Amino acid sequence: MTVRSPIKAYRRKLDLANGRVDLGHGSGGRAMADLVSGIFREAFANPFLDQGNDQAAFPTPRGGRMVMTTDGYVVSPLFFPGGDIGSLAVHGTVNDIAMSGARPLHLSASYIVEEGFPLADLKRIADSMGRAARAAGVTIVTGDTKVVERGKADGLFISTAGIGELPDGLDLSGDRAEPGDVVVLSGSIGDHGVAIMSSRENLEFETAILSDSAALNGLVEAMVAAAGPHLKLMRDPTRGGLAATLNELAHQSGVGFRIEEAAIPVKPEVAAACELLGLDPLNVANEGKLVAVVSPAGADALLAAMRAHPLGAEAAAIGTVVADDQQFVQMTTGFGGGRIVDWLSGEQLPRIC
Amino acid sequence: MTVRSPIKAYRRKLDLANGRVDLGHGSGGRAMADLVSGIFREAFANPFLDQGNDQAAFPTPRGGRMVMTTDGYVVSPLFFPGGDIGSLAVHGTVNDIAMSGARPLHLSASYIVEEGFPLADLKRIADSMGRAARAAGVTIVTGDTKVVERGKADGLFISTAGIGELPDGLDLSGDRAEPGDVVVLSGSIGDHGVAIMSSRENLEFETAILSDSAALNGLVEAMVAAAGPHLKLMRDPTRGGLAATLNELAHQSGVGFRIEEAAIPVKPEVAAACELLGLDPLNVANEGKLVAVVSPAGADALLAAMRAHPLGAEAAAIGTVVADDQQFVQMTTGFGGGRIVDWLSGEQLPRIC
Repeated sequence: MTVRSPIKAYRRKLDLANGRVDLGHGSGGRAMADLVSGIFREAFANPFLDQGNDQAAFPTPRGGRMVMTTDGYVVSPLFFPGGDIGSLAVHGTVNDIAMSGARPLHLSASYIVEEGFPLADLKRIADSMGRAARAAGVTIVTGDTKVVERGKADGLFISTAGIGELPDGLDLSGDRAEPGDVVVLSGSIGDHGVAIMSSRENLEFETAILSDSAALNGLVEAMVAAAGPHLKLMRDPTRGGLAATLNELAHQSGVGFRIEEAAIPVKPEVAAACELLGLDPLNVANEGKLVAVVSPAGADALLAAMRAHPLGAEAAAIGTVVADDQQFVQMTTGFGGGRIVDWLSGEQLPRIC
Repeated sequence: MTVRSPIKAYRRKLDLANGRVDLGHGSGGRAMADLVSGIFREAFANPFLDQGNDQAAFPTPRGGRMVMTTDGYVVSPLFFPGGDIGSLAVHGTVNDIAMSGARPLHLSASYIVEEGFPLADLKRIADSMGRAARAAGVTIVTGDTKVVERGKADGLFISTAGIGELPDGLDLSGDRAEPGDVVVLSGSIGDHGVAIMSSRENLEFETAILSDSAALNGLVEAMVAAAGPHLKLMRDPTRGGLAATLNELAHQSGVGFRIEEAAIPVKPEVAAACELLGLDPLNVANEGKLVAVVSPAGADALLAAMRAHPLGAEAAAIGTVVADDQQFVQMTTGFGGGRIVDWLSGEQLPRIC
């Protein structure tokens, strides 16, 4: 495998002597990137982690390559319109594997449960995980359960890890975006985050807003087949939303992005809810969407393949990669103006996943 | 690979309608076994999970077999004599891989952090994980951090998952114990649990009691080389201690065990502390010990190889496997009497790992 050089350091100074973890450190934004490079990357020092992607690729003893990924799930509430912590934990880990182009194989599940948690809810969540896993074609092969005293956790946390098989010749990575490449988004943004927030705030809208939580490995398979070597990278815009993902990729590839607001699909009801809640859809988490970067020669074939898949029906080219030493994400707004799309340093929506 | 038949159902009726999770469900004892078979085994229904071991073995796409395992760590306090939650999370997962005879390769780490947690402690724990991983010859290739609000977790929880490569021809599993086989223990029991309890209760003893937390993959390699096909199974007696492990294995293999109390190494200071704390060393968790079952023809070679390794210096044959439809673990006591060693249905020592 190709071991890439560590991604550019983009850390602000962590106060390791007296600082404390705040909600922003779990936000998927700048503070989390600082924490990762300031603490974990240094402590674990290895080229696999330094790939800086949401999954690590490594050679397997018998030849070929695999990927491994993990995510913790602390979403609140545990049950929300369009899913629950169980289906989310399966989809999130399947998607992190799939973003490398790998075929997801097996998952593990670690449960941390608060004393007093209803067994009926645990069963409902486990059943939901089982269904999500079967639908995505993966098996949950091993697990663990720990129980902590009442008041020492919030109902249930789940950590899933997953492994997948990486096809030969495929080399997708967040550092491969080059000026001129096309940025493609698989569908509308903001659905997951708004579904969670509405459910948390007990808001009701005329049109029900459902989480987009879904396993993207089928869509990815179609994309890889259609675009071949033209496909440079994929990433799912979860925590921190599209804004955080594009900023991450800009830093990792050392480029800028120029995107068109008018080209980014946002459901009208999601846009309305965002206005009501004071959110920018660009910062809101998604759990069934992906961003892809593709060389211009492959863009049409990629878009056609995506639109032919139920999870990519609304796929759109939303912008291009540009040369930019400052690694800015710039957006042409619907009114013809322009603005910088920064990632948030703090936390807009805690416990969204 | 050989897919084994599901382990015998040993469930008490879970009240799935109105029941609630209690601390016993995380104890490693009977209640946890009930929870696993009553909820997870059914929801995830697959032959890998049904192997019923602490790790799952599966064929890899290019040939050969790998194993995967996961564990959550909620130990309190986070720092204890002889280790911390970070080193424990590495050792525990490395050991669960090694118990199958596999060579541990890579780990993932998922952090759930309470808002306000000191960055200095997080760094100390990450550094400890990095050191433990390097010492065990594994790499932490991928990770994730989530932050929850103050009061919604207890400082820090870590879930690690790990994968390893299973050598051809090796087929260790908890259902392979047969009457006549010899039961071997790698060293003294109770050290980890007593170290945690002493630290929690602020007890001081004349001799400091340290956790035995250690990576056992080096010891295992020596054992596999020495005993070859005579080695039937290995398991680390963590939560629930030696008593829970032997009862688990008795159920899984459909046999009984007869062990000798006098043959089981217990450090005098650990025995004294157990008396003071009202604990039975047989129920106390270990994090650097293993139980092996070996056919009589391989026992001497196995013991010699173990004793030649620093982590097996006190290895001892502690009993034999017997035919027993009731699957009892019986112990001849130091006074020449006998007793049944049951596993606890509840929780003796919550949050020991």
